[in-house]
Amino acid sequence: MALSFDCAKHKCGENTLASITPRFLKLPENSPLSLRDQICEVVSAAITSKSLAHDRPLPSCRELAEQLQVSRNTVFAAYNRLVDLELLVSRDRSGYFVAPQMAALNTALEDRELSEKDAAPCPVSFPSNNLMPIVNPLDWNAYPYPFIYNQIDPDLFPVDGWRECTRQALGRKQMPTWANDSVESDSPQLVQQLRQRLLNTRGIYADEDEILITLGSQNALYILGTIFAQSGKPIALEDPGFFGARNAFRLSGSELVGVAIDDDGIIPDAIPTGCQLVFTTPSHQFPTMVTMSQQRREDLLKAAVDKDFLIIEDDYEAEMNYVAKSSPSMRSMDKTGRVIYVGSLSKTVSPGIRLGFIVAHRDIIREARIARGVMMRHPPTIVQEIVALFFQLGHYDSHLRNIERRYNKRWHAMNSAITKHLSMLDRTKSEGGTSFWLSGPKGFDASELAVRLKDKGVLVDRGQDYYLNYNDSRSFRLGFAYVPVSNLEAGIEIIADEVTAML
Amino acid sequence: MALSFDCAKHKCGENTLASITPRFLKLPENSPLSLRDQICEVVSAAITSKSLAHDRPLPSCRELAEQLQVSRNTVFAAYNRLVDLELLVSRDRSGYFVAPQMAALNTALEDRELSEKDAAPCPVSFPSNNLMPIVNPLDWNAYPYPFIYNQIDPDLFPVDGWRECTRQALGRKQMPTWANDSVESDSPQLVQQLRQRLLNTRGIYADEDEILITLGSQNALYILGTIFAQSGKPIALEDPGFFGARNAFRLSGSELVGVAIDDDGIIPDAIPTGCQLVFTTPSHQFPTMVTMSQQRREDLLKAAVDKDFLIIEDDYEAEMNYVAKSSPSMRSMDKTGRVIYVGSLSKTVSPGIRLGFIVAHRDIIREARIARGVMMRHPPTIVQEIVALFFQLGHYDSHLRNIERRYNKRWHAMNSAITKHLSMLDRTKSEGGTSFWLSGPKGFDASELAVRLKDKGVLVDRGQDYYLNYNDSRSFRLGFAYVPVSNLEAGIEIIADEVTAML
Repeated sequence: MALSFDCAKHKCGENTLASITPRFLKLPENSPLSLRDQICEVVSAAITSKSLAHDRPLPSCRELAEQLQVSRNTVFAAYNRLVDLELLVSRDRSGYFVAPQMAALNTALEDRELSEKDAAPCPVSFPSNNLMPIVNPLDWNAYPYPFIYNQIDPDLFPVDGWRECTRQALGRKQMPTWANDSVESDSPQLVQQLRQRLLNTRGIYADEDEILITLGSQNALYILGTIFAQSGKPIALEDPGFFGARNAFRLSGSELVGVAIDDDGIIPDAIPTGCQLVFTTPSHQFPTMVTMSQQRREDLLKAAVDKDFLIIEDDYEAEMNYVAKSSPSMRSMDKTGRVIYVGSLSKTVSPGIRLGFIVAHRDIIREARIARGVMMRHPPTIVQEIVALFFQLGHYDSHLRNIERRYNKRWHAMNSAITKHLSMLDRTKSEGGTSFWLSGPKGFDASELAVRLKDKGVLVDRGQDYYLNYNDSRSFRLGFAYVPVSNLEAGIEIIADEVTAML
Repeated sequence: MALSFDCAKHKCGENTLASITPRFLKLPENSPLSLRDQICEVVSAAITSKSLAHDRPLPSCRELAEQLQVSRNTVFAAYNRLVDLELLVSRDRSGYFVAPQMAALNTALEDRELSEKDAAPCPVSFPSNNLMPIVNPLDWNAYPYPFIYNQIDPDLFPVDGWRECTRQALGRKQMPTWANDSVESDSPQLVQQLRQRLLNTRGIYADEDEILITLGSQNALYILGTIFAQSGKPIALEDPGFFGARNAFRLSGSELVGVAIDDDGIIPDAIPTGCQLVFTTPSHQFPTMVTMSQQRREDLLKAAVDKDFLIIEDDYEAEMNYVAKSSPSMRSMDKTGRVIYVGSLSKTVSPGIRLGFIVAHRDIIREARIARGVMMRHPPTIVQEIVALFFQLGHYDSHLRNIERRYNKRWHAMNSAITKHLSMLDRTKSEGGTSFWLSGPKGFDASELAVRLKDKGVLVDRGQDYYLNYNDSRSFRLGFAYVPVSNLEAGIEIIADEVTAML
């Protein structure tokens, strides 16, 4: 009875259904949204695209429910939601109509044919660039053994803590803080937390104007590359090294020089004179995971003065140490203002949030802030505020301990499995991080290995992509942040079988 | 009784308080957090910075409550929260202790003196750049009449709808989507919504691979500037014009050419041959608000073919039209693939979220995607997902109508007030947008006006900042997005008084 009353109240014309193009009425496939929200989605989209008549009612709840194969109450809930949003109006005894203000939309172009441009060739052509982005298969997480870099284990992420921070950050009294444009200043809360909880543990003291928030460490390197490119001097990088840095400095217009590394890290004597900057990853060399020795750090700082270069210290995975304590950062050792420190929250919070930072002399930060403003104004305020709370409420510290514990376990499992099954390969000495660097004998083709392994469900990073000057294809990298600990040894065994077959 | 039991259970040593440096025990001033969360913040920060002894208990709830002047239950709640986070442990009859795993922190450096570097001069110096960021006073919203550009009225923002989208986007089953790194691909949901609800209303059809999500339109312009800079050809811009575009193209290394505008928009005949790109804002010319006429659009498209340049169409405030309907976008008129369309969600959602997009030929998008990856990988996944839901659930359409209504009212109020009080100035013909462009007679100094008005609580944007080649100081701009409608006329009257005094 209630239903027929509802129906009588919202009486609909006979031709209603015909007034809607059927394709707008199909619910999306595999949508994670609730049925009510899916209906809101398709109906509001139909309104925006002017596919609904304005002088006739929408289908009645009963009709639409039948057509979409959902309950009448669900359609009723969706319609009422759209009334709340003022996209529909409900008229007693007539039904639901598109709100008059939507009919008067200034923005929609009526009866305009969308121009398809597929036929036109591109009027410009780009010279091939040498930025070589390293691309994992898009379905990498469908592989049983994805030993690849830069993904986090989603099970580790403290979703509830993150949600709590988001809820608090979105409180109405916080709104003006994050809704507005703020080219110049970063979130004071986030800067404060970085100083107190992150830089502090790396022995670094920095004033507010010596810190710049960036959109991840990749963005930090690109900004630094840009402000130093005008000097016209080359930038030296570890070789093998971080392709992200290489690409950032290349795109921002600098000439690159590769510098060899040994078991103590980058070799200062191998740095040519005349360089503007030297990029290094002392905590764990990317990609070999070598930790720069204390003596080498001192030598490198001395070379910076002697040869008049600045050092970019990318404090890559500084938190992940399982055998020894973290070494002090080079920035904390430097008395000359020559070390520019770059950090990231991608590994310790999540790569999807895209937050990093630069600590440097305030003159450099001032220049970097201007460049950042021109490139993108600032990282989204809302993300900065959520992450600040994530620190403030203690979630970061708690999460970091969990990551360390989990990766520690995996690192030792990897260490054992590699010792047991891959002893025919050279392994670079490592005390932490989330990967291992392995090399075959002279003539070994790790790229071929990577191809073979992919067929067996194992993804590894081939080493040759990390080289700038040398073209060494003997090495490969095994990242273990994403492979569950129970699968690690099985994966290593598959690798061992292929390596053995290739030797 | 319950309290003394509690106290007995968590018995504390006499010297406990002395074990904490008092400065860590002060609650932050003016914190928006709850008292419990403030205590979590200071105690967890003290743990991170190793300021708490590990072999002695923390102050008891009673002691800390007295010291901080809060209730004992609040301290109790905070301590339990930190136990949940595994930062503290509770030991019966002994009290709360720092968790043993926190004591074994690898990352914290013990007894390390933080090195202050204030004394060291910067080892490099930067030549002064000509990027001239336009900076509003940081306390601009404390002025009663902030007639400035690029801020939104926070009262307009649909906080509840945004919260709902955030909550849904953060559901656990969504987690892998947004926590992971996704250099290559943008949120398919967001791309789909842009196509269906935004590009559609501008007459634009685009495939997925013809769209790139950027960190706001500023970032879109910088990316485009970068990929075209290697051509070595100059870029032409409207003069006066958008300083954001000027800075983006300048920083990415192109030579700039200013092109005069008239009442129909940019003048195609004034564009010199040999330019790679022409930047234009046809919907509402920035900063004069002139809408480019239909004939002018056709002439400009023809000139693009004749002189072999591409057009960047920044569809600035296309949604905000109060007198006439929106004109079709140039991208929708173009049959030659020469128009690159740039859009933003800053005005229609919020500037703090930093989302924009490029629509162009897929060859251009492919190149832009590589450049974006090197500059910053991608805009934060979580923000993309929230905004996609904001569209999907109908909030965007609803919000856009509200903005239009509100700004429409303000525009007409401004229009009347300017007609009534500022008829001694030239006003550029405008049919929409969120600002007006006014010019005094020859010799009038609008920069002087801006300085005088600031003292009277009125902020205006002086015109000379918008010029590239010309140095016209007769004009100024009045943005009304932030000034409440009830204050508009009073503000205009103050401006009129000053203008009169200066004439």
